[in-house]
Amino acid sequence: MEKREGEGEGEEEQVVNPWTVSAKGGGKIDYDKLIDQFGCQRIDQSLVDRIHRLTSRTPHVFLRRGVFFAHRDLNEILDAHERGEKFYLYTGRGPSSEALHLGHLIPFMFTKYLQEAFRVPLVIQLTDDEKCMWKDLTVEESQRLARENAKDIIACGFDVTRTFIFSDFDYVGGAFYKNMVKVGKCVTYNKAVGIFGFTGEDHIGKISFPPVQAVPSFPSSFPHLFGGQDNLRCLIPCAIDQDPYFRMTRDVAPRIGYQKPALIESSFFPAMQGETAKMSASDPNSAIYVTDSAKEIKNKINRYAFSGGQDSIEKHRELGANLEVDIPFKYLSFFLDDDAKLEEIRKEYGAGRMLTGEVKQLLIQVLTELVERHRRARAAVTDEMVDAFMAVRPLPNMFN
Amino acid sequence: MEKREGEGEGEEEQVVNPWTVSAKGGGKIDYDKLIDQFGCQRIDQSLVDRIHRLTSRTPHVFLRRGVFFAHRDLNEILDAHERGEKFYLYTGRGPSSEALHLGHLIPFMFTKYLQEAFRVPLVIQLTDDEKCMWKDLTVEESQRLARENAKDIIACGFDVTRTFIFSDFDYVGGAFYKNMVKVGKCVTYNKAVGIFGFTGEDHIGKISFPPVQAVPSFPSSFPHLFGGQDNLRCLIPCAIDQDPYFRMTRDVAPRIGYQKPALIESSFFPAMQGETAKMSASDPNSAIYVTDSAKEIKNKINRYAFSGGQDSIEKHRELGANLEVDIPFKYLSFFLDDDAKLEEIRKEYGAGRMLTGEVKQLLIQVLTELVERHRRARAAVTDEMVDAFMAVRPLPNMFN
Repeated sequence: MEKREGEGEGEEEQVVNPWTVSAKGGGKIDYDKLIDQFGCQRIDQSLVDRIHRLTSRTPHVFLRRGVFFAHRDLNEILDAHERGEKFYLYTGRGPSSEALHLGHLIPFMFTKYLQEAFRVPLVIQLTDDEKCMWKDLTVEESQRLARENAKDIIACGFDVTRTFIFSDFDYVGGAFYKNMVKVGKCVTYNKAVGIFGFTGEDHIGKISFPPVQAVPSFPSSFPHLFGGQDNLRCLIPCAIDQDPYFRMTRDVAPRIGYQKPALIESSFFPAMQGETAKMSASDPNSAIYVTDSAKEIKNKINRYAFSGGQDSIEKHRELGANLEVDIPFKYLSFFLDDDAKLEEIRKEYGAGRMLTGEVKQLLIQVLTELVERHRRARAAVTDEMVDAFMAVRPLPNMFN
Repeated sequence: MEKREGEGEGEEEQVVNPWTVSAKGGGKIDYDKLIDQFGCQRIDQSLVDRIHRLTSRTPHVFLRRGVFFAHRDLNEILDAHERGEKFYLYTGRGPSSEALHLGHLIPFMFTKYLQEAFRVPLVIQLTDDEKCMWKDLTVEESQRLARENAKDIIACGFDVTRTFIFSDFDYVGGAFYKNMVKVGKCVTYNKAVGIFGFTGEDHIGKISFPPVQAVPSFPSSFPHLFGGQDNLRCLIPCAIDQDPYFRMTRDVAPRIGYQKPALIESSFFPAMQGETAKMSASDPNSAIYVTDSAKEIKNKINRYAFSGGQDSIEKHRELGANLEVDIPFKYLSFFLDDDAKLEEIRKEYGAGRMLTGEVKQLLIQVLTELVERHRRARAAVTDEMVDAFMAVRPLPNMFN
């Protein structure tokens, strides 16, 4: 993205859009500022409590720990749910790589929880068209990656009787395409530049794409699922960098007679080297992949996971670990479900009574189990199962 | 279109693109200049003779009289045909109105001739998505008009065993959408602005559209017709205002491994009020519609067809008619098949021995017959026939 006029010289602003996530001056992302800038709401404890009450189950660790921290109209979705009205979930993935890392799993783990807790249908969009355009992959390679990624998604445990996974290259057309045209009519090029930062040298394929990601928000895009239920509400769990797409979608929706989708948005999963670093596809040591072996996980965490512990044991015992920057502790706060155990680590490690090595040991154990469980689940996903999830079919019991 | 900087003040340049056709200073379109500007070739007598020889039949009146006057790579298509190679035809219509006028029929009458003369398959695109966006019609109304227009097109006499008619709202998707993405990747926004004159206030639906009109040029967009025949050549009969789409298409084709489509391009059909006037949808007297009654045709021609004859009979006998501006004569040169008869009128009317009234009389007769024949043919087109032409199906004998 080009810098906007009026921004201070030598002072790089925070940029968060679907293609660029970079903090101001190489620091951490300022999520409060993002909420202000985007105009969404923070998820507070009362909202988490409300979800707890409505679903009669402990809210997901990602909700309890503030990984999903922002929303739009989530209360309206809960109001509707309380009245006995239905809604559906929509999430997606751009299939740009063969192997997913842990950050990629977060929206899917959370969406699975929402699907179970609310017993609602779910559509998952694989934007193979987007990746073909942005990553300059061939159509065939994008479609192959979409199918490979679908296996990882299915391995997260979605219910095939409530879940429709689709690839844009396969599914765009018909009612979906009609909605794309309706959305496209409502967004000027200048507006799209304002939202997405396109430049004149961007190709028109990119400029055509936002309606493709917008329209799964509308039930009429899925006549085989929601035929005639044009007022069904949609809730989108996603990382907050996707917010621009849905700001646009929410702006357009009432103009074409549709409901605005609601959003529940996560922060970004930090890189091994710390929250100021980027997870980089070209640096396999910046992330734990779901394909990593137990040995690789152990080595990566021991060697690369940025520690907030002190330089010497003496100093550590005296000052304690800086939990604000400690990656092993951050990762545990994502993946260690046991609240009491995490609280104990926070206290002991923060006070210097626990050493980085011990925390890393526990993280290695937690992630090895997680990855091993994912690997087993993924190995059990057959091509027939992928076909079943991706079949254009009604889901007669999707609300039961 | 906005005026480009550097254009002379008070001197309006000729503008020809798919949405605007306007001559310099309210005069006639300068087709020679257009050929230079667009970079296409003029169809000369030797090319018409070659078509005559290759098809063993008299070339269509629109070829003999220079209505189709420009081309791109037509010789390559004829070379291929001579070698016994196949090709297919692609033409289309933007369904923006219920009733077609005579100008709308021209590409279809000519395409039917090409289909018969070369015994080749044909795809006809109904760009209901385009009209929904440019004319701000609803999706439903655009689709209704597409089906109504399909009946008029079928009434031109196309062979259902060689012809596939499709609406974009129905057909976009799959292989067709994959080609749209491939094309979109190769055209920057700046390039699209240069070709189509988009501005920042145009909506992104419009900017997304050029690939939709481009990809029927590629056989792989129709797997049910041309599966595996990825090198099949395409010939596009169209009015020259559509050239920008296919300049773009020809530029992109080799970059995505496809053949460039060839083109055969017509001039514009003049308005009743003369070649400097516009046929206007809001002025029914500016054109003869295929729904006009015999009485309406007679009245319109007698009252509104611009005459090149002189003010008084005496002056007419002395100076003769100005055939350059005479609409009855122009219209006859489009629709009177009899070369000898037209030549006689040119001589007699031009020399003042024939009066405007007599020429108008003949034109009324020719057009009444044409419109009556069309009306009868259209009345015989059933919904089942429309479904048959629009069914996504193989055409096993399309080259026989």
